[in-house]
Amino acid sequence: MTAVGIDAIEIWTGKLKLDLAETFAPAQGDDPGKYTKGLGLHASSFPDVYEDIVTMGANAAYRLMDRKGLEPDDIGRIDVATESSFDNSKPVSTYIAGCLEQVFDDDFHHANKGERKFACISGTQSVDDAYNWIRAGRNRGRAAIVIATDTALYARDDPGEATQGAGAVAMLIDEEPAIVELSTEQGYGSADETDFLKPNQQFPSVDGKRSVKVYLARMREALDDFATVSGSIHPDDYHMIPFHTPFPGMVRKAAALGYRHIVRGTDVEDVLAEEIGHQPVREAFDSEDAFNDAIREYTDALTETERYRDWYNQAIEPTLEISRHVGNWYTGSVHLARASGLKVAMEQDIDLAGEKLLVASYGSGAQAEVHAETIVPGWEDEIAALDIDDQIQRRYDLSFEEYEEVHDVHNHAMDAHIEEDAEELTPPEAEFVFDGWGRMGERKYRYVE
Amino acid sequence: MTAVGIDAIEIWTGKLKLDLAETFAPAQGDDPGKYTKGLGLHASSFPDVYEDIVTMGANAAYRLMDRKGLEPDDIGRIDVATESSFDNSKPVSTYIAGCLEQVFDDDFHHANKGERKFACISGTQSVDDAYNWIRAGRNRGRAAIVIATDTALYARDDPGEATQGAGAVAMLIDEEPAIVELSTEQGYGSADETDFLKPNQQFPSVDGKRSVKVYLARMREALDDFATVSGSIHPDDYHMIPFHTPFPGMVRKAAALGYRHIVRGTDVEDVLAEEIGHQPVREAFDSEDAFNDAIREYTDALTETERYRDWYNQAIEPTLEISRHVGNWYTGSVHLARASGLKVAMEQDIDLAGEKLLVASYGSGAQAEVHAETIVPGWEDEIAALDIDDQIQRRYDLSFEEYEEVHDVHNHAMDAHIEEDAEELTPPEAEFVFDGWGRMGERKYRYVE
Repeated sequence: MTAVGIDAIEIWTGKLKLDLAETFAPAQGDDPGKYTKGLGLHASSFPDVYEDIVTMGANAAYRLMDRKGLEPDDIGRIDVATESSFDNSKPVSTYIAGCLEQVFDDDFHHANKGERKFACISGTQSVDDAYNWIRAGRNRGRAAIVIATDTALYARDDPGEATQGAGAVAMLIDEEPAIVELSTEQGYGSADETDFLKPNQQFPSVDGKRSVKVYLARMREALDDFATVSGSIHPDDYHMIPFHTPFPGMVRKAAALGYRHIVRGTDVEDVLAEEIGHQPVREAFDSEDAFNDAIREYTDALTETERYRDWYNQAIEPTLEISRHVGNWYTGSVHLARASGLKVAMEQDIDLAGEKLLVASYGSGAQAEVHAETIVPGWEDEIAALDIDDQIQRRYDLSFEEYEEVHDVHNHAMDAHIEEDAEELTPPEAEFVFDGWGRMGERKYRYVE
Repeated sequence: MTAVGIDAIEIWTGKLKLDLAETFAPAQGDDPGKYTKGLGLHASSFPDVYEDIVTMGANAAYRLMDRKGLEPDDIGRIDVATESSFDNSKPVSTYIAGCLEQVFDDDFHHANKGERKFACISGTQSVDDAYNWIRAGRNRGRAAIVIATDTALYARDDPGEATQGAGAVAMLIDEEPAIVELSTEQGYGSADETDFLKPNQQFPSVDGKRSVKVYLARMREALDDFATVSGSIHPDDYHMIPFHTPFPGMVRKAAALGYRHIVRGTDVEDVLAEEIGHQPVREAFDSEDAFNDAIREYTDALTETERYRDWYNQAIEPTLEISRHVGNWYTGSVHLARASGLKVAMEQDIDLAGEKLLVASYGSGAQAEVHAETIVPGWEDEIAALDIDDQIQRRYDLSFEEYEEVHDVHNHAMDAHIEEDAEELTPPEAEFVFDGWGRMGERKYRYVE
């Protein structure tokens, strides 16, 4: 069976930066550690006034096609995943194709365009669609471009405000991929949950505590489901585990619970037992509360063991590197985590060819999906082509007043949003920009040389 | 290769009826023929106050599972296609799964749930996702439920108001299907168009004239693309051609242009030439206008020929039967057209086993997709299980005043919408109903015995 997977990646960050320690914390009267240590976030990317989900997605996709020497005829589908859509009918993928057609001679008239929505998990669902389409023999030798693009903005003064972010990840899904091959096997954990939603509104309603709980519960279900098809999961099987990363602190929790869950009953638990005892079992406790306390204690002790710390430093920590500086990108976040982990490994000259990733995606509402990926020889060349570090460095560092103004510009309900001449903070160059509204309320775009 | 396709269908119409000739036309001071002849529509289905895209979709899916004796464990994915979504993050499929979990003992926690948006074409895109997932070997013996559900409402006094509709089509996609097998081959025609959109709004902005033009242009591209993979298309190859049907008058146009396009250069054109001459060719005319006039004349003459009329009466007319009485269901419309055609054939005792359908889907924004389906022996039994005629008969016949009130209840921007005790016009029975809002603005549902 031909390998199918991710052949190339491009990342595009929003061009503004909100520094959480230096700018946001003082304005809120907060200790910077609340953000840098508690959430594990130093800054978030924010869109300049001429940026939105279309420009960021089109810019990432254009770089991808340009770098790989692709023409429109090479592309059989363009799938966009977003939860920041601004139209209830017309998909963002048509706008992005329209942008690309401004810079290519040919068109995408015979490519299938789509849009998926399911909180942060639809990026992975779109990768799966592309994978299945190729496996089904419907691609006619063409590749798919999957774009996960979001402006993850919260209402001002919402508890989620510090976890904002904005950016796009474009992925080329193809046969004989150059980065990772996807597993056929998948595990799902999914339930009708009310943890995070946007009922007829731009900014989310969030029950933060519930959201963390639901993330962990659905992830455990997905791991169990994956084990039924892939066989039992051993931590040594996977070099890294990119999780959906709303903020690194969430993944710290998920990693500890996930590790505890997958080592239960394995040789690893036995080795750890010499140091911290065996995992508590429900039967041994009189009440659910007492059991939960014991589990919590065990987990705390687990995360202090050398074995766990070694695992965490290899499997989890590298995947959080980019996220710390850009915040939550919703649909793009787990794909940023994969790229981050591979980038750190490349910088450390680690030979990953043939090694496996366990990719753990999540979307509120709620669903987790787990699948495996096998890293392909030559992956370093593709990862070396990423310029995300430069992009992060080049961002304009917002003052709090500027942040307040540009947040208003992106607020669909505010007058500031309607101003087509809101002042830009960075000069656009060699990129697509928002160019005002058309007569039917559609957004218009142009390429700036 | 195992056949994959549509194994079962259930249709759920909104429970109210707006009679266009008897009720709408007089209130508008219009000649009823504007609707019954011009659009080809007699009535539209409208949702009662307790109905929405979730209730209609859940009701169709529940009947499907109940009739086929399916349990949640038999279902590996629930995909919803809609352009009437009321949340920018949480997908309708999770709400529908939540409804179904109220009536089944088991849950759908290991099923993938999704939501697609692309105007009216996402129902077909979701069928394709399910097909590809099975072909990719990821279904673990399970089937997919695809639900196309929409409340296709327009702003009051919008020119599109007469083409409204509301309903859901649930389809079971499985191996060894009992109705139709889908072709691997697909043809696409797709471009970034501004013909119909909903920029941050519930009701559409429509450029009606442009929308008709774009529908025809994209459909022609899709036919050409399909021909490159399936070989040239001959009208005799397909017993019926279900088109996306915003209103039957649109399909009348599309059928004539489609027929003219596919018979060009075939034996059929030669036979027709004896009566109406050959098709005009651009080179023979001095100007584009003169050529277009000649094309128009030829097309008018074509639709008057016996050969065309026979073809139309077999291939197109039966697919419009249900649509005439229920209006536009957006994502469900092309699937309603297929069901309509098969139902009429069943009533006429036509043996269709082994015959082919050419299914022509369309979504504004814009994209057309064309694929073939092969009708499977035993299809009549599945089609005989449909009770859509009874449902259409049982609808409550709205007075114009009642229509105005219930339209307000479904208008997200109006106070009437917030009233949780808006008076229902039909008594709910053995169905899911809307049950008010939760504390985070989520919609709640319950099953009424």
